[in-house]
Amino acid sequence: MLRIISKRISSNIAGVQMKQVAKYSSGHCDNPQVAVVLSGCGVFDGTEIHEAAAVLSHITRNNATPFIFAPKIPQMHTMNHATGEEDKGSKRCTFAESARIARGEIKPLSELVDNYKRFSAVIFPGGFGVAKNLSDFAMKGPNCTVHPEVVAILQGCHRAKIAMGFACIAPILPARVLCNVTITLGNSSPAESWPHREAIEAAKAMGAVLEFKGVNEISIDRENNIYSTPAYMYNGKFHEVDDGIGNMIKYMMVMLKHGK
Amino acid sequence: MLRIISKRISSNIAGVQMKQVAKYSSGHCDNPQVAVVLSGCGVFDGTEIHEAAAVLSHITRNNATPFIFAPKIPQMHTMNHATGEEDKGSKRCTFAESARIARGEIKPLSELVDNYKRFSAVIFPGGFGVAKNLSDFAMKGPNCTVHPEVVAILQGCHRAKIAMGFACIAPILPARVLCNVTITLGNSSPAESWPHREAIEAAKAMGAVLEFKGVNEISIDRENNIYSTPAYMYNGKFHEVDDGIGNMIKYMMVMLKHGK
Repeated sequence: MLRIISKRISSNIAGVQMKQVAKYSSGHCDNPQVAVVLSGCGVFDGTEIHEAAAVLSHITRNNATPFIFAPKIPQMHTMNHATGEEDKGSKRCTFAESARIARGEIKPLSELVDNYKRFSAVIFPGGFGVAKNLSDFAMKGPNCTVHPEVVAILQGCHRAKIAMGFACIAPILPARVLCNVTITLGNSSPAESWPHREAIEAAKAMGAVLEFKGVNEISIDRENNIYSTPAYMYNGKFHEVDDGIGNMIKYMMVMLKHGK
Repeated sequence: MLRIISKRISSNIAGVQMKQVAKYSSGHCDNPQVAVVLSGCGVFDGTEIHEAAAVLSHITRNNATPFIFAPKIPQMHTMNHATGEEDKGSKRCTFAESARIARGEIKPLSELVDNYKRFSAVIFPGGFGVAKNLSDFAMKGPNCTVHPEVVAILQGCHRAKIAMGFACIAPILPARVLCNVTITLGNSSPAESWPHREAIEAAKAMGAVLEFKGVNEISIDRENNIYSTPAYMYNGKFHEVDDGIGNMIKYMMVMLKHGK
């Protein structure tokens, strides 16, 4: 039975990828096409799983179609999520691990560099993968460098006035790549509720304007078409993060329908 | 900065695990404690990620507290989710991979064997991990064996009349372990919407009664206190699976409040 299952998985994946290529040239405002950029699979070395799941379910809930991308690069490292320690014996690829969240329906991020104009919006969930794989913020803080494909996508979407959404730690990407953006990374107190609050000062040092927001709120930078929400910057319950991301995506989709 | 982040992760994990041990002896009907059993991280060799995310967010949304468990066993194999092929060079542990979904807050399944009576409900999301790690259904179909810890939990919860919820392929577990259960594995047509429909005949061969249900519906076996929903047995959109699981958990929590 396993062979049958494996064969079906492979053919399903091939079928879906072909469908994706055919699909993402025909978007219109009633069914926007939204690119989602992942950075692995797991909060401590990749994409935060619950944020990605929320992003994808709220995209389809709002009658939009998600297309998932990740860079074909080695992960900075692999964390054993049960112990919190690095698993030095395990080398993983950001693309293959992101494909776990994508259920196999994933494209290389380089394709988004070439095709970002075909999308109505681009959304980056958070997780340490943003700070370890899409950038080196985890090591270098405000002096970090951002992966060149991410730089190209952010600069291109900014020029083309394509909406960009960021959850959790992901707003450090536009803070580093673009000028004078307004974002949220949540709040700084009470300390026990905001375990990653030091990122706020780092983003300020990059030149961003920071707004304090709760887990169910969103920051809106109308000039730069940038939306952000704290998600797991807050030590919240699963449904609180789902709701915050849901609010951001619903607002983005409403704005798209009004041509903004 | 990385050292600071890694240190915080470790201490957070330790803190949370201590909190869990302290917590799960004090549940009451206004804030039920619900055990969630994972089998890895990724649809093709572990827990289906979006189903697990939906289970957890709907548990907290209904004012219940989730506690996450997984067996400390090697995964049957590792699948490259981008290609659909086995990654023969990668050996992974079901517990450590499940911890990615649990954000580090996970306990060995053996603890649930010893403590299942402290919980108001136990829920199993789907994914091939159910058929490869929690059982060998992927290889042996109706003649499969189920992991002894899972057998002990299902038989114990059944005797103690503790509610059990199953998504996607997970209902094959009670079908194999318990007698005369009623479950759903979705529907068998149209074929393109139900890619794993052959599991229905396998579950019938195990002696289960099968109900045809849509992705947003649930099957309820009142006599055995078993709830099930098709989830990704259906080739659905992300929010459709979220809604189906949400319906199942909401119904289970309402029944708990009414002492059923």
